[in-house]
Amino acid sequence: MTPASPVGHLELVTIGTELLLGFTVDTNSAFLGRVIAEAGVRVSRRTSVRDDPEEIRSAVSDALARSRFVITTGGLGPTRDDMTKKVVAALFDTPLDFQEPIWQALVERFARFGRVPAESNRGQAEVPRGALVLPNRWGTAPGLWLSGRLGELIMLPGVPSEMKGLLTHEVVPRLAARAGGRAIRSHVVRTTGIPESTLAERIATVEDSLDQLTLAYLPGIEGVDLRLTAWDLAEAEARRAFERAEGGIRAIVGDHCYGTGDDDLAAVLLERMKASGLTLAVAESCTGGMVGERVTAVPGSSAVFLGGVIAYANEVKAGLAGVSTDAIGADGAVSEAVVREMAAGVALRTGADLVVAVSGVAGPGGGSDAKPVGTVWFGFSVRGAVDAQRVVFPGSRADIRGRAAQFALHGLWRRAAAPPPGR
Amino acid sequence: MTPASPVGHLELVTIGTELLLGFTVDTNSAFLGRVIAEAGVRVSRRTSVRDDPEEIRSAVSDALARSRFVITTGGLGPTRDDMTKKVVAALFDTPLDFQEPIWQALVERFARFGRVPAESNRGQAEVPRGALVLPNRWGTAPGLWLSGRLGELIMLPGVPSEMKGLLTHEVVPRLAARAGGRAIRSHVVRTTGIPESTLAERIATVEDSLDQLTLAYLPGIEGVDLRLTAWDLAEAEARRAFERAEGGIRAIVGDHCYGTGDDDLAAVLLERMKASGLTLAVAESCTGGMVGERVTAVPGSSAVFLGGVIAYANEVKAGLAGVSTDAIGADGAVSEAVVREMAAGVALRTGADLVVAVSGVAGPGGGSDAKPVGTVWFGFSVRGAVDAQRVVFPGSRADIRGRAAQFALHGLWRRAAAPPPGR
Repeated sequence: MTPASPVGHLELVTIGTELLLGFTVDTNSAFLGRVIAEAGVRVSRRTSVRDDPEEIRSAVSDALARSRFVITTGGLGPTRDDMTKKVVAALFDTPLDFQEPIWQALVERFARFGRVPAESNRGQAEVPRGALVLPNRWGTAPGLWLSGRLGELIMLPGVPSEMKGLLTHEVVPRLAARAGGRAIRSHVVRTTGIPESTLAERIATVEDSLDQLTLAYLPGIEGVDLRLTAWDLAEAEARRAFERAEGGIRAIVGDHCYGTGDDDLAAVLLERMKASGLTLAVAESCTGGMVGERVTAVPGSSAVFLGGVIAYANEVKAGLAGVSTDAIGADGAVSEAVVREMAAGVALRTGADLVVAVSGVAGPGGGSDAKPVGTVWFGFSVRGAVDAQRVVFPGSRADIRGRAAQFALHGLWRRAAAPPPGR
Repeated sequence: MTPASPVGHLELVTIGTELLLGFTVDTNSAFLGRVIAEAGVRVSRRTSVRDDPEEIRSAVSDALARSRFVITTGGLGPTRDDMTKKVVAALFDTPLDFQEPIWQALVERFARFGRVPAESNRGQAEVPRGALVLPNRWGTAPGLWLSGRLGELIMLPGVPSEMKGLLTHEVVPRLAARAGGRAIRSHVVRTTGIPESTLAERIATVEDSLDQLTLAYLPGIEGVDLRLTAWDLAEAEARRAFERAEGGIRAIVGDHCYGTGDDDLAAVLLERMKASGLTLAVAESCTGGMVGERVTAVPGSSAVFLGGVIAYANEVKAGLAGVSTDAIGADGAVSEAVVREMAAGVALRTGADLVVAVSGVAGPGGGSDAKPVGTVWFGFSVRGAVDAQRVVFPGSRADIRGRAAQFALHGLWRRAAAPPPGR
């Protein structure tokens, strides 16, 4: 059915009027590109067309003429936009057959939800003669893999969960076996608390020594991610090259590097604290609960995290976090004295080993010459020993709050590394 | 320079190897599609190619042959991928001229940041002869608008902020004046707390009566958005049709509808509370600060929001929120008794008019037959009068927490509508 000729590259044709109108951001394409590249096949072009038979026909036909291998997404639904199969069948000059087993599977799937498929669903059981049917466990429209004189064509549904399931479980294993090139592999090293330009200067020597990899800087609210890419290495070779490069970067940036890949700083922090048997609490003003939210997003955080106080109004800073009116009166709520008392007060009230306190001017209003928008004070209590830091963050209110939450987590992570005093 | 012939549709060609490898999600295309559609021009096709001169040439040339009007993004940077202009100049058979004023503007821009442009930046001052230069206030590469025998071609940079600035300020005004069709307009009605299928059943009559609009259901963590689209109406007509449809929907779904467009439920809540002079506090367990985070993300939230307690561990529920050990002992931390005491305790300690308390099983572990993963108890205190509700949310840990935070905000918003007792 699918001849075993090697596949070096392929084209994507994504079908859907919504994609061109910009109502939805096309996240499918990034997933397709990445997974196909990891399988060792290159996506050489991507075309997006609206739900129109002539547009679909010309895009698919041109792509097959150029590349002989095409994956389409979309146009397999039960509604009026169910036109991909008809167009493709005509193009490949093959009839559409109604396949009873597909229909029965559909009836059973509907029955599980107490429903009966509509007449319009019958089209989903139609298959261009000769196509391999890729069973869809994530929805109703099966994927289809058709080979013919024009080349090979894989049709996938446009619903992201169904496309991803079919691509990962049905397409990639077959594609990887026929990959003509080597896989494109990447490895991300995550840093925080160091600006992109400074980072670039410091690791210039590492960058210059990368002969088999390329390096990309990906700055964001949580810090700067460094993406290393191996364009043409076998898996073991790529892994060794990544390890060498990561080692070089870590040796220079030290604990500005907190992880790799998808590592989340909150998860990394919780892991370290759990290993040392430490407990955590927060005292948040300008972040308003964001540090707590980041920490509790991690499953199992209750082993470490006790809770804390959202001390937004001054009365709550006083009443629940135990900040003195003297401290607030002396230099305002955004001050060293206040974050120190917030951290100490919440440590006392919760008994947590580590506490971070955050108070700042997130904007857009409320800034002054002495305390411009972006000014944030952090207080850290480590088993009762309190220290404080002041940082001015750039960006919007959302940027400042996000950067402040990340800075708080990073400060906690650093402080959790040293053995706590008194132990 | 740009002849005033009408433009009915155009094609996009996005240039960048990263787009095909899936390292980045292509958010540019959605923005381009939406803004161009709003200007009354239809995007008929989108092609993405890698940084390769032959690929760029064939994609641009085919698109011009089909549509006579093309916008490209990417390939205008100072590095090796600076090939769009060269390819286009060759295609239009016109030379590239070095324009001193563009170079001077670049030198001045660099000087403002205390830098000097590199020799490689000189290419950014090269312009295909006859092209209209679109000044780029957001970066270094100007946009270019070229007209010729093959049609019209607009070249924009790929950096999102620069592309968006140039498109909005330089391209759209010129394009709108020549739009061949009417604009595609849309209007979003936001609902929460009502499942998609129930919503669809209830508003079926409204949907059937839409003769000039189409309706799309967009379910998400925050609820179900209803997008109404007018495909071919003048602005005033579209506005009237949207008002009628929205009125019909609101009459049926009542206060499940909390806003339109980009309205955020937390902002809508704060507005209502501010108008009534009410204050707000939170007592969060399973959401871990997410409700506070949502509220404080809104600028000016300090007029209403006092703060509260993140009561994750039972000791913090007792110590900071005043929950009795009896309540926790009777039916555990996820129970009606506990959320009632959390709400009342935080109301007492902060003096807030409205308080929401949230305690639930966010998973993935910790579920039981009596309290499966997704079970969340909410307690609401309205000037001391406390009530409670239990909901079981579907989905992942992130889904459950996000839905619970939205439910908490919705419950507060509903309760803030009634005049508070004792006033």
